[in-house]
Amino acid sequence: MRAVDWLLHEDEFNPSALGKCEAVMCLGNGYLGLRSATEERYIGERRGLFVAGTFNRFHESEVCELPNAADFLEMDIFLNDEKFNLQSGTVKSYSRTLNLSTGELCRKVEWVSPIGRGYTLDFFRVVSLCDLHTIAQKVCITPLDGNAELSLSTGINGQITNSGSQHFSEGAKRLYEKKYMQLVQTTVESNIDFVITTHCNFYGGEAESHIHMDRRKIFSVYTAAINKGECLTIEKITTVHTSRDKACENLGTEALQAHGLANLKKQSVGYDKLLVDSAAAWKAILWDNVPVTVESENPRDATALRFAQYHLQIMAPAHDPRMNIGAKGLSGEGYKGHTFWDTEVFALPYYIFTQPKTARSLEEYRYNSLPGAREKANLGGFKGAQFPWESAWLDDGEVTPLWGAADIVTGLPIPILTGQIEIHITCDVCYGIWQYYMATGDEDFMEKYGYEVIFETATFWESRLEEGDDGLLHINHVIGPDEYKDGIDDDAFTNYFARWNLYLAMEYYDKLSGTALLEKLKERLTLDRSGWQSKAEHVYVPAPREDGVIPQNSTFLILKDIDLSKYKAQKQVGSIYKDYNHDQIGQMQVCKQADVLLLLLLMEAAFTPEVKRANWNYYEPRTLHDSSLSLSTHCILAGDMGDYAEAYSLFERACNIDMGPNLNSSNDGIHAGSIGGIWQCAVLGFGGLRLVGDKIRIEPKLPESWRRLEFYAFLKGQKVRIEITKDKINLENTTRTGEVKLEINGIEHVLTDMLNIDNYSQPI
Amino acid sequence: MRAVDWLLHEDEFNPSALGKCEAVMCLGNGYLGLRSATEERYIGERRGLFVAGTFNRFHESEVCELPNAADFLEMDIFLNDEKFNLQSGTVKSYSRTLNLSTGELCRKVEWVSPIGRGYTLDFFRVVSLCDLHTIAQKVCITPLDGNAELSLSTGINGQITNSGSQHFSEGAKRLYEKKYMQLVQTTVESNIDFVITTHCNFYGGEAESHIHMDRRKIFSVYTAAINKGECLTIEKITTVHTSRDKACENLGTEALQAHGLANLKKQSVGYDKLLVDSAAAWKAILWDNVPVTVESENPRDATALRFAQYHLQIMAPAHDPRMNIGAKGLSGEGYKGHTFWDTEVFALPYYIFTQPKTARSLEEYRYNSLPGAREKANLGGFKGAQFPWESAWLDDGEVTPLWGAADIVTGLPIPILTGQIEIHITCDVCYGIWQYYMATGDEDFMEKYGYEVIFETATFWESRLEEGDDGLLHINHVIGPDEYKDGIDDDAFTNYFARWNLYLAMEYYDKLSGTALLEKLKERLTLDRSGWQSKAEHVYVPAPREDGVIPQNSTFLILKDIDLSKYKAQKQVGSIYKDYNHDQIGQMQVCKQADVLLLLLLMEAAFTPEVKRANWNYYEPRTLHDSSLSLSTHCILAGDMGDYAEAYSLFERACNIDMGPNLNSSNDGIHAGSIGGIWQCAVLGFGGLRLVGDKIRIEPKLPESWRRLEFYAFLKGQKVRIEITKDKINLENTTRTGEVKLEINGIEHVLTDMLNIDNYSQPI
Repeated sequence: MRAVDWLLHEDEFNPSALGKCEAVMCLGNGYLGLRSATEERYIGERRGLFVAGTFNRFHESEVCELPNAADFLEMDIFLNDEKFNLQSGTVKSYSRTLNLSTGELCRKVEWVSPIGRGYTLDFFRVVSLCDLHTIAQKVCITPLDGNAELSLSTGINGQITNSGSQHFSEGAKRLYEKKYMQLVQTTVESNIDFVITTHCNFYGGEAESHIHMDRRKIFSVYTAAINKGECLTIEKITTVHTSRDKACENLGTEALQAHGLANLKKQSVGYDKLLVDSAAAWKAILWDNVPVTVESENPRDATALRFAQYHLQIMAPAHDPRMNIGAKGLSGEGYKGHTFWDTEVFALPYYIFTQPKTARSLEEYRYNSLPGAREKANLGGFKGAQFPWESAWLDDGEVTPLWGAADIVTGLPIPILTGQIEIHITCDVCYGIWQYYMATGDEDFMEKYGYEVIFETATFWESRLEEGDDGLLHINHVIGPDEYKDGIDDDAFTNYFARWNLYLAMEYYDKLSGTALLEKLKERLTLDRSGWQSKAEHVYVPAPREDGVIPQNSTFLILKDIDLSKYKAQKQVGSIYKDYNHDQIGQMQVCKQADVLLLLLLMEAAFTPEVKRANWNYYEPRTLHDSSLSLSTHCILAGDMGDYAEAYSLFERACNIDMGPNLNSSNDGIHAGSIGGIWQCAVLGFGGLRLVGDKIRIEPKLPESWRRLEFYAFLKGQKVRIEITKDKINLENTTRTGEVKLEINGIEHVLTDMLNIDNYSQPI
Repeated sequence: MRAVDWLLHEDEFNPSALGKCEAVMCLGNGYLGLRSATEERYIGERRGLFVAGTFNRFHESEVCELPNAADFLEMDIFLNDEKFNLQSGTVKSYSRTLNLSTGELCRKVEWVSPIGRGYTLDFFRVVSLCDLHTIAQKVCITPLDGNAELSLSTGINGQITNSGSQHFSEGAKRLYEKKYMQLVQTTVESNIDFVITTHCNFYGGEAESHIHMDRRKIFSVYTAAINKGECLTIEKITTVHTSRDKACENLGTEALQAHGLANLKKQSVGYDKLLVDSAAAWKAILWDNVPVTVESENPRDATALRFAQYHLQIMAPAHDPRMNIGAKGLSGEGYKGHTFWDTEVFALPYYIFTQPKTARSLEEYRYNSLPGAREKANLGGFKGAQFPWESAWLDDGEVTPLWGAADIVTGLPIPILTGQIEIHITCDVCYGIWQYYMATGDEDFMEKYGYEVIFETATFWESRLEEGDDGLLHINHVIGPDEYKDGIDDDAFTNYFARWNLYLAMEYYDKLSGTALLEKLKERLTLDRSGWQSKAEHVYVPAPREDGVIPQNSTFLILKDIDLSKYKAQKQVGSIYKDYNHDQIGQMQVCKQADVLLLLLLMEAAFTPEVKRANWNYYEPRTLHDSSLSLSTHCILAGDMGDYAEAYSLFERACNIDMGPNLNSSNDGIHAGSIGGIWQCAVLGFGGLRLVGDKIRIEPKLPESWRRLEFYAFLKGQKVRIEITKDKINLENTTRTGEVKLEINGIEHVLTDMLNIDNYSQPI
């Protein structure tokens, strides 16, 4: 994978890396995600079409997941009876390119068939950012050595599954007007209709077509003659609609079918027009609006930021507050499309600063899912709202699966306990809402949704705290961010944030005191401010030891140390599981990811630089970065400590999680949190934009190789352009309808229109 | 596909013909069928493991079908980090061979990897005929150009579906004793547990292994070093057990798991031993017992008969009378594992004459499925028992799906009406039972099962007949054997056989008159003998016209004729559907398959040679043989009319349905009825062994190119060797515990030990 300028390139067809390109070059628009599988099929591919929020549960033995819908990308191409396939014949030239600027995927191939006839085949594809339901494909075929008879078989294939689990019943198949093919699939449990409608147009030659229907399949076989040296162009336009779409919720299946057909006809304006319109939308939404511009000695850094913005755009179901971001976005089956803390802690800052409406929608989802969160608290014998570790439907509550990979000692699958005991998600959600509020000042959101979530989560913590023999309140038997430790007590991260959640609720309760809103909330909710307070005051939070090290939990520091160098140097994450099982790893001082360090970052004002340094020195060598969420946290923290070279190195590693050379790490989908982390490294880390308490702070820490960083951030409703060079900070309020208070390198400023700071000095 | 002696050969790897070899070279033992997919995977493959009688319904929108169980054949082989795959690198030599004698599948490959390193890989596989649950694989790998590091990934993969429909919930995965892998799958509706247990042994080198579990998957990665020129052998032994197995019905899942593991340990005696034992069973059951020996100028004919016997052996669930033969045996998803009339009319004669116990089990299945047949009659407002056109579970009743391929005119799937109106299956079942009884004289079977079926089916017909304006009784709105005609009246085949069914019931009723058995049956059943009689006497059966032609139904002869030459010369069956839709074909004098001609064959004594000739001349030119059941009927009838050359040509065509060059005709599985037909052509046709009424007749009609035909037939409990040459018929009663009355070329004989007839003359 080469990342150059606005482009991601694959220069050589590699059948071992199909999954990677499918995910990393995934197309989408937040409504749907379409893995970039090739038109011709290969073993090892993982074709995927996912529509946000359409969860289904295949069987009671599984949890719900985002179903993998029918494939329409496939094209079986025969040229003079030889099947086009890059594993046969000779590939004379090959390139596959994702243009991050336009969202177009191109593949250009010069292929010599097994019997020696040359052809060029150029494939183009775009998922529209204008009409969320439309996907366009174009194929140009030129025979080089003689005339060719083309036979092209393409249609809609509903045989696709989620790794064997089939979420759909076989629905209607229909050919309209001898040209428009349609397949209906309905999820078996959640009863969502999917209607996919498609048709092909030929340019540069006449084609005959013949319709076929097979099990879960409708397709046409097109035959056409192509003269030597001439180009035949096939365009395939497809629409995808579901009964979960807000516009279609109350349509019956037949009306949805008619709607899908009507929209296909409307969208059939030709590939090029669809592409131009969609590219214009990319420009308007991102590249002309809130681009991050990096001038670095390593030009790949700029591409990495574009890559991050591209994926953050296509993964977010900004159109519907009943949906949220999956841990793999919409780019794969991994994590079943479920929403984790990744949203608030790793992705949300991007939306807060660049697309506050999307950020609001994502947090409205949390409010909307309070029924499930209340149910989860209640099931555990607690009060208030406990957000599920993994979240799907609004009223699902917990959807974490129960079993994972193989335990090498017992020979059984490893139980997954995160859904039961990784409870810090509840304060993470609160933290996300608070950050959104701090950045935007969106009082309307808080009144409608935000305060209620903060109060209800505080009530959960109040009921969850356990009095210990020491008279203090503890949180026992949890998993902290470091998931290599199960069922530990007094996880530092969890305890600090639970206490913070209680104090935040008290602060807002007091602020709302005497308002009609508070009275209304009190009618519906049990708001026990004094209960919050009496508990908050007695929460045990592990203080730094004399050497500054904060115990990650009550036992971590007394566990045995082992030589981790083999695993620190690993090529694939999780290699320690080849030598030890989960229980054994639980008995060692080894961390999967940032835990205490994440606490130090998110609550940065609460800890001294000395404590940060001490904990870095202690924990980083013991951390395997086996979670994709680890490197960006370490990067930002390294910058905060003045280790710019280390920070930059960690940034590069974070970028490599998806963009890097590992062939299979992204098979199940891109790493949404990690991609949010790339943006965080640049803007919150190197750019130094941070929310500290209710303050907005800018404290740039550009790495050596970065000459200039420019980005945009919505701050209190004002869109601010922030340009940072080695010696200057230039700010421009492009909205100019209000003022923004900022602290820049320790000095408070008020930004109304422009602010230019010369010769600032980066902290050590 | 070359068929030579005892072997079916594939001489060149052809990725377009994967399905054909998988089906035609399918392994099995009647308990399970295992498609012969390659160890390495290819696009276009259709891996398949089917266990008889384990039907499941994926969703209410589908009918039940035989689920495609987990795959354990797959082996991902990396040699020095290069993936073994015949579509990459160079294939220096290749052969895949099914040995019909031993049931062993071998594949021998010399492969030069993409970077130019040579290897030989020999693959062997056998499904045990001794222990029905055991499958053995062996792989021998030799690096030719240097040492090799092998990485082999293999285990059990439960992601397999039936063309996208997943019948199983994900069950337990387990590694026992660090070596035995086990996967449990449970059918989602019928709740049948499948337990698959497997392990690998390495010979000629040490292997390290590492266990992996993934969704619906358990597999180990084995790594080993192989020295240049040395052979490393991997043996993988697998057992398959289900909770539908009689021996395991009352075990819980955990006990079934223990049972599977215990049997695997018991069967782990090495590949060669398992093969030798299984080959011995093949010899004992078939090749030393009831072989058909053909001496022909075309040696392929002998192989065709072995091919037929091989498949007739592996398709029949002889172990369990709750199960029957699917239209594709156990060799594919086609026809969903359902049982059709193919059993009685096309396959049963083979078992009646060579494996009467199996024949009895198959007809016990019909008796056992009377609950479903009664239910079907009742649902239609009729009395007695109406057998379903497609049959699965004993109490299912009708399981024919409702929709088929695309209608080119309406753009909708074609409705499948056979389940509703192709009612002749009910007399076909009766005919099968009657044939079994005529050949075996098995009174025990008749008393326990046979009479009841014959009475109950007669009662159905009695209630189904409709009085017409002509005062006669008609059967309206049916589909006859020619399925190109829907909803026609007075189908000759149906009417003749319905009347026969009534008369047969009367005959047996009278025979049983005064017995305790009849009294007992009368207690349970409504046996209205006079009702049968009064109806039987008034059934309208279409008599031959003056020119001898019997109207296939009430309207066929007035439909328009079109020029069929294009379709008669077709390479793929069903080509007429590319030009006309089903309704249009229904308005033409065109037959899918033998219809009136089949009547003339099955009721041969009822029609004169002139009538046969007239109908042949009329119908054959109008028949497209678009059903695989058509050619063998025509072959036998051609012989009966003295057209030996035509008969032989039709035999060759019938053999080619599966063994022939068409690359994709067997993708969904072999054609069970057609394979029964191959045997019928030889033994009933050329050998001239026939049951005519209650007589056993031998009237040989050897084709020109056949010098000698020898076969065995159980006749009235005596195993008779029948040898036919151009001028001799030699019979030997090898049982010698009784005598067999026979009519040989018009002369009655009684066979006690030997009978040699010289200088017989074949009828012209």
